[in-house]
Amino acid sequence: MDMLGMFCIRACSGLGALRTATRVRSLHSVPGITVAQIDEEVAKLLELKAQIGGDDGKNQFVLKTAKGTRDYNPRQMAIREKVFNTIISCFKRHGAETIDTPVFELKETLTGKYGEDSKLIYDLKDQGGELLSLRYDLTVPFARYLAMNKITNIKRYHIAKVYRRDNPAMTRGRYREFYQCDFDIAGQYDAMIPDAECLKIVHEILSELELGDFRIKVNDRRILDGMFAVCGVPDDKFRTICSTVDKLDKMAWEDVKMEMVKEKGLSEEVADQIGEYVSMQGGMDLAERLLQDQKMLQSKQACAGLSDIKLLFSYLQLFQVTDKVVFDLSLARGLDYYTGIIYEGVLTQAGVAPVSNEAQNGAPAGESVSVGSVAGGGRYDGLVGMFDPKGRKVPCVGVSIGIERIFSILEQKAEASAQKVRTTEVQVMVASAQKNLLEQRLRLITELWNAGIKAEVMHKKNPKLLSQLQHCEESGIPLVAILGEQELKDGVVKLRVVATREEFDISRADLVGEIRRRTSEA
Amino acid sequence: MDMLGMFCIRACSGLGALRTATRVRSLHSVPGITVAQIDEEVAKLLELKAQIGGDDGKNQFVLKTAKGTRDYNPRQMAIREKVFNTIISCFKRHGAETIDTPVFELKETLTGKYGEDSKLIYDLKDQGGELLSLRYDLTVPFARYLAMNKITNIKRYHIAKVYRRDNPAMTRGRYREFYQCDFDIAGQYDAMIPDAECLKIVHEILSELELGDFRIKVNDRRILDGMFAVCGVPDDKFRTICSTVDKLDKMAWEDVKMEMVKEKGLSEEVADQIGEYVSMQGGMDLAERLLQDQKMLQSKQACAGLSDIKLLFSYLQLFQVTDKVVFDLSLARGLDYYTGIIYEGVLTQAGVAPVSNEAQNGAPAGESVSVGSVAGGGRYDGLVGMFDPKGRKVPCVGVSIGIERIFSILEQKAEASAQKVRTTEVQVMVASAQKNLLEQRLRLITELWNAGIKAEVMHKKNPKLLSQLQHCEESGIPLVAILGEQELKDGVVKLRVVATREEFDISRADLVGEIRRRTSEA
Repeated sequence: MDMLGMFCIRACSGLGALRTATRVRSLHSVPGITVAQIDEEVAKLLELKAQIGGDDGKNQFVLKTAKGTRDYNPRQMAIREKVFNTIISCFKRHGAETIDTPVFELKETLTGKYGEDSKLIYDLKDQGGELLSLRYDLTVPFARYLAMNKITNIKRYHIAKVYRRDNPAMTRGRYREFYQCDFDIAGQYDAMIPDAECLKIVHEILSELELGDFRIKVNDRRILDGMFAVCGVPDDKFRTICSTVDKLDKMAWEDVKMEMVKEKGLSEEVADQIGEYVSMQGGMDLAERLLQDQKMLQSKQACAGLSDIKLLFSYLQLFQVTDKVVFDLSLARGLDYYTGIIYEGVLTQAGVAPVSNEAQNGAPAGESVSVGSVAGGGRYDGLVGMFDPKGRKVPCVGVSIGIERIFSILEQKAEASAQKVRTTEVQVMVASAQKNLLEQRLRLITELWNAGIKAEVMHKKNPKLLSQLQHCEESGIPLVAILGEQELKDGVVKLRVVATREEFDISRADLVGEIRRRTSEA
Repeated sequence: MDMLGMFCIRACSGLGALRTATRVRSLHSVPGITVAQIDEEVAKLLELKAQIGGDDGKNQFVLKTAKGTRDYNPRQMAIREKVFNTIISCFKRHGAETIDTPVFELKETLTGKYGEDSKLIYDLKDQGGELLSLRYDLTVPFARYLAMNKITNIKRYHIAKVYRRDNPAMTRGRYREFYQCDFDIAGQYDAMIPDAECLKIVHEILSELELGDFRIKVNDRRILDGMFAVCGVPDDKFRTICSTVDKLDKMAWEDVKMEMVKEKGLSEEVADQIGEYVSMQGGMDLAERLLQDQKMLQSKQACAGLSDIKLLFSYLQLFQVTDKVVFDLSLARGLDYYTGIIYEGVLTQAGVAPVSNEAQNGAPAGESVSVGSVAGGGRYDGLVGMFDPKGRKVPCVGVSIGIERIFSILEQKAEASAQKVRTTEVQVMVASAQKNLLEQRLRLITELWNAGIKAEVMHKKNPKLLSQLQHCEESGIPLVAILGEQELKDGVVKLRVVATREEFDISRADLVGEIRRRTSEA
């Protein structure tokens, strides 16, 4: 493509941003609009401005993060840390170890694992040496790790960033760089026991994070494949029809059917038969009913899947989580490597998160609107074998918590609430009431640090008492240890409680103990 | 380059690996050789094998991580978590907030920040869109973050991976992907107060990690530049001579001098004058002495640097850390962006870490051999201004803890010690003494999980009691809750203490409390 053509495309996409911005401006007084949405639009416009030459037509440097990525400021990090702690506690409660793998893999390690999504993989530039790609998920590196180290059973979690050159939609928590929190059980075990534990984990995490009501949809790849077979889909179209079915959470059935018929070449009758099945939702009863279904009975693998769904539900009853689990024949999940049970956790409380246009159009007529998937996973018994030189299989099942959308929701909650998020854990500020006490302040804070107290001191020779106190108010530091000539003479420190403005003298020897007492978390 | 040429180069580098491997084999009975070294050599040979065609000449898939990277297994992760906790506690004790930035930046964000090291930056492939590079350190992204968000003061830490296409030396903890733990103070403050706090932090962390004895070398870019000026180095050679001086910790003075004279074109006399200065080490006294030095007095900026070193040492005395800090005129540090104080933490206890050949050759005649830098940093007052459209400066000083070498040392320590590293925190295993108790086991573990107890259950219908107990022994699980027909009839559980093999019945209602009592960390 010539430079001019390139410029046109860029300018046009830029105009798209302008149009969006105009829409945003007209929405200015609508209460649904968020600061994050505005930021995103501003970023688009600034990018456009930079492309067309900046303020003065010079080729100006653009001060931004890469498209689809973002920084986390201290407030966001404080929220993120809380979410991670909840998730990690749950993984540890279930006895998981943790591993880490590099952010990039040999390109060939990722090849042939993601089907149509492979086009979204980031490659590294060939600078001489190996061809590398950024990891697309944590599952394929996990399988590579198992095969490479000949590990046949492990229960592990892995929390790390993954990379997808997808169309970002940052206000909805869709980024090109995002965290995944994965928990997987590898090993030859009795059917559905590890699978049920994964669902128990999703249930625990989504409950503890207090994101509002949720559902966990369950299906099985064997049921999908069997259903396609008995409906008359040709074998070589299973995968592509599967990814069309996967769009049902974002598109109306009519559009999904259109894609099956017009793009993928199914007959209307076949599509309609699929349509009948994928509208079914239920529990163990639905699995039992389908095990009586004359058409389903023609497929051995569908029956195997349905029996396992029954068994799964019996374990889920023991785990006390059936209240949220739905057997849903429309659940497909895009990835190629699943071989059995698949599942997805979705938040159902409308209004908690921004609802996308697509989701609104395609929403089922039920009482709750799906606001998107926040967890997903399934069984992949063949993936490790793809890496083993002798093809030895290690059965695996796992779940991935999609943390970015959860962050978005909790961030909005925090913004909406009046409660201030503390970004440090400082217990006490060492301050002075008069000039020329830097040396004394540094001596005192050294005592505190050496005793393990979290303490701050202003990096100025002669800071004003007021500005020291203001800093405490702003950042939520609960105590101030104030030094003055008189206190030094008396061998004491004036301790001030920021919240109550109460002040009292305390001997230097008792200071550490007093700070600990007053800031212990119990 | 044609394909044949390419192959020759590859094969030759492969032969290098073969030679190394032969050397390793001949060293087989030497006690100094480690498992990690052997693994590294094996990896090199396997890479060579893959390059020349695999077992049977077919183009076989190579099961490995990218060159210079590694996985962390659960044991390594347990050690890593401990190190991170020590470091993060210290950063939090000093009142730092934390931020996160994306793993890649716009290529131009990194351009012109790293001098000669820029060639080591990983670029992403141009797949349409922005040109991106993996971050090389956390300092430049931090400066970009400050400028972009117009932040003029912050104390923040950031722990994340960075990427350098360097020659890996994995046994010495030099990787292409590695963690940095950075602490920085940005803002306009009084001279040397934040700088001294950074050194206090290095002192605290290196002490707490118990890595053996260490030194913190301190110098100042202004002293180096002033010294170059008064010795007669032309202005435009300051930077390149600086990076030659930086090699003094790995090369003998004779070789450094040779590089200055032969490669960089200094006269012998100029080099010798530099040689005299860079052999000087001391404390506040040395700074005072140099402030009387007739030649140094000719340089205003050297004097400014020397006065600041004096001031710094006075604060370090108050912080009680002068025992480990040395003013060392040979310390240069390679990066372009430093403008004032620079420092480096080095371990001095020989034999703790593998000593490189270069380090042995170039070691000073002193009583301790440097085993390498584990922390480094300095003042960079101009970097944020490079990103600000109006060039507004934000003075910054910071320190980066080089965690990989620290891991290597602690890993070797753990390997050498008999103590087992636990990789999970499981408190109790739910086991059964007879068959057909899966349902009962799942009911019981649900009770425990719901009460927040960390518990495991075997994913088998009828596991043998022995194999359940063995699993506890192997993974250090302290308690087993055993169910049998009799216990179920009596409404009790048999609790077994793995270490003592003691067993006793306990009522179901008291179980959670008893497990908590016996596994509380206090």
